[in-house]
Amino acid sequence: MKAPSTKIEPPRLGEPYLLTPGPLTTSFAVKEAMLRDWGSWDDDFRAMTQDMRTRLLSLLGDGADDFDCVPMQGSGSFAVEAMLGTFIPKDGKALVLANGAYGLRSAKTMEYLGREHVVLDKGDYLPPRGQEVAQILADDSAITHVVAIHCETSSGILNPVEEISEATYAAGRKLLVDSMSAFGAIPLEVSKVRYEAMVSSANKCIEGVPGFGFVIARKSELEASKGNCHSLSLDVHAQWDNMEKTGQWRFTPPTHVVAAFLEALRGHEAEGGVAGRGARYTNNRDVMVAGMRDLGFETLLKDRWLSPIIVTFFCPADPNFEFSRFYGLMKDRGFIIYPGKLTVVDSFRVGCIGQMDAEVMRQVVTAAKETLAEMGVASAAPPAAALEERAKLAA
Amino acid sequence: MKAPSTKIEPPRLGEPYLLTPGPLTTSFAVKEAMLRDWGSWDDDFRAMTQDMRTRLLSLLGDGADDFDCVPMQGSGSFAVEAMLGTFIPKDGKALVLANGAYGLRSAKTMEYLGREHVVLDKGDYLPPRGQEVAQILADDSAITHVVAIHCETSSGILNPVEEISEATYAAGRKLLVDSMSAFGAIPLEVSKVRYEAMVSSANKCIEGVPGFGFVIARKSELEASKGNCHSLSLDVHAQWDNMEKTGQWRFTPPTHVVAAFLEALRGHEAEGGVAGRGARYTNNRDVMVAGMRDLGFETLLKDRWLSPIIVTFFCPADPNFEFSRFYGLMKDRGFIIYPGKLTVVDSFRVGCIGQMDAEVMRQVVTAAKETLAEMGVASAAPPAAALEERAKLAA
Ligand SMILES: Cc1ncc(COP(=O)(O)O)c(C=O)c1O
Ligand SMILES: Cc1ncc(COP(=O)(O)O)c(C=O)c1O
Repeated sequence: MKAPSTKIEPPRLGEPYLLTPGPLTTSFAVKEAMLRDWGSWDDDFRAMTQDMRTRLLSLLGDGADDFDCVPMQGSGSFAVEAMLGTFIPKDGKALVLANGAYGLRSAKTMEYLGREHVVLDKGDYLPPRGQEVAQILADDSAITHVVAIHCETSSGILNPVEEISEATYAAGRKLLVDSMSAFGAIPLEVSKVRYEAMVSSANKCIEGVPGFGFVIARKSELEASKGNCHSLSLDVHAQWDNMEKTGQWRFTPPTHVVAAFLEALRGHEAEGGVAGRGARYTNNRDVMVAGMRDLGFETLLKDRWLSPIIVTFFCPADPNFEFSRFYGLMKDRGFIIYPGKLTVVDSFRVGCIGQMDAEVMRQVVTAAKETLAEMGVASAAPPAAALEERAKLAA
Repeated sequence: MKAPSTKIEPPRLGEPYLLTPGPLTTSFAVKEAMLRDWGSWDDDFRAMTQDMRTRLLSLLGDGADDFDCVPMQGSGSFAVEAMLGTFIPKDGKALVLANGAYGLRSAKTMEYLGREHVVLDKGDYLPPRGQEVAQILADDSAITHVVAIHCETSSGILNPVEEISEATYAAGRKLLVDSMSAFGAIPLEVSKVRYEAMVSSANKCIEGVPGFGFVIARKSELEASKGNCHSLSLDVHAQWDNMEKTGQWRFTPPTHVVAAFLEALRGHEAEGGVAGRGARYTNNRDVMVAGMRDLGFETLLKDRWLSPIIVTFFCPADPNFEFSRFYGLMKDRGFIIYPGKLTVVDSFRVGCIGQMDAEVMRQVVTAAKETLAEMGVASAAPPAAALEERAKLAA
């Protein structure tokens, strides 16, 4: 087996870079790992599954022994639903901390499940704070679980999971974390942040291709969760139990996507694990944000809440700016950006994750500059309404 | 775009042939289609999704206009659960026709859902017949839906969906079909077999790689199904609604697996669609079964119920025969076979689907012959108990 390279190379088939928070640009080696077929029942594939689980657990740092990793077919949302349905008992009650689309999706999932929950909705981009959580838990003793989003990808905000965790356990409740877009680049070490379970997926900071997610959960919670789940397919306990007994996934695994993910995990390790990966993304963000600000763009968030995952920019007020044209011209230049998800003002997002380095980020800024010129946009400054919106964050 | 070839070539990276009913051996072109990254929001990928849906619908023949195709992330079981949860209303009642592991899994799914159901359990390999269905429906007017397995992959039996459909609609009820392992090779034309919805997945007779399933449903049923589903992720109505409005999957699609599947659909078309694919598989089966019988192996099923998908053989009675050794030696010869799933006697299965032709099947038989010799198995004849078991089928 050849050692994974940590050099970033441009997409070999000439496709655009994906400045999107998953699917993202993966290395060619990751995609090449999909060029053969595996039997899902065969020992070779069982060993791959086991290797993957062990590697993922090792990212938790000290104390990982108390946890186990359960991969789950489907996209990340399936894994989130699996976690909520499996660990929040039918008579439990959740406090869902929302500040964007993914927090609200967790709340909606709880509605589908018909399980009790309350939502702390902070709007599009204010972080839920430890004190607020403490207050709500003090006022409502029925709440058993807190659900937090690590990086709320719809704005790019990095939520303060440490203080949320402290408030949760100080009140004797349990924490479940959606770390979809953060895990692998932002530490979530179990000796530093207490939680019962978290989820992420193949196509985020580990830089695999999309096709499954995984739940990492405390073994004692896994053991206690039998019979909770509302869904056969999404039952994390049943998947875990079967995997422990047979080394196999319960139902057909996405074999090629798993092979790609294993290669991605090797690349992640070669880059220095969570620290190395996080450092590259942070540098990507810094270079890209500085360049975009030089062009006159403004970020939605203050630096303090900017994640190294994805950054939201306001659309320029200039009447010549039209997002779909900007998107198309950026794509022509080799970069796929992401539309915004804010409710009040127009915005777009630029991801910092995937097989990209500072040099690529400089090219992104150059492409944005050329595109503005081509569109006849004189100034990238946002409308006054956007700045008012942002002023709320000063609170 | 190069025209897909219909020539069968051996696995290029030298991996064993998968004589398993999915994952199966795919063409190199199918795997090569995964060598680039796509943005899931981008027009290019939306067009791929639309192309896939259109191609799948075209396999239904005349009357396909009344149906729509909704892909669903996850393995086939996720798509089955999505179909049951979306189309059987909370106050509905299902008759689940079981003759093997997959029928029983549908029944178990209904249990998870907490929806009313009765099971007609025919044991491991007797087909549920139209008359039996008619009788049960006549006796229980509360039943709203019948759930049938097209090819019950655990034995390989091809269930008589036509007569099941006739009995169902004669009684004014609705049919849902799990055609996971049959669709694409065995006709399921809506002008010939009436049903409301069916499911299959990427890694069966269309010969893609595993990573998602799809539900094909009558549009009127899709429209009527809002609010039925017990799961956010598995809600076929919500997925359909979103796809119709935006051209996108609701949650991150397995982009590479979809690209591979599109290539597989092109290969399927080039081979002559369902008829061409089915003819090759039928020939595969005939050559393989004849060869294995020549070696003294006996099939579980009578010819009448043998599907061209997968065939169950009894393990030889010879004390030198041990399945795990047989498996390992067959693998050394380049063929991965599949363990049996019967409850009473030992068996194994050999799949006929995937990128394999009669020549490959002859090699399988030769490998089996050599392996028996190497193991010192003088006769491949099954134990008497197996033949008694089979005699039940004469009924
Ligand atoms: C924080 C977060 N949660 C959940 C999801 C949903 O993942 P998926 O789109 O794979 O279903 C995402 C996707 O970006 C995410 O960023
Ligand atoms: C008839 C049938 N139903 C359901 C399934 C389950 O599919 P999966 O293993 O992809 O979940 C299979 C798998 O072989 C099958 O053959």
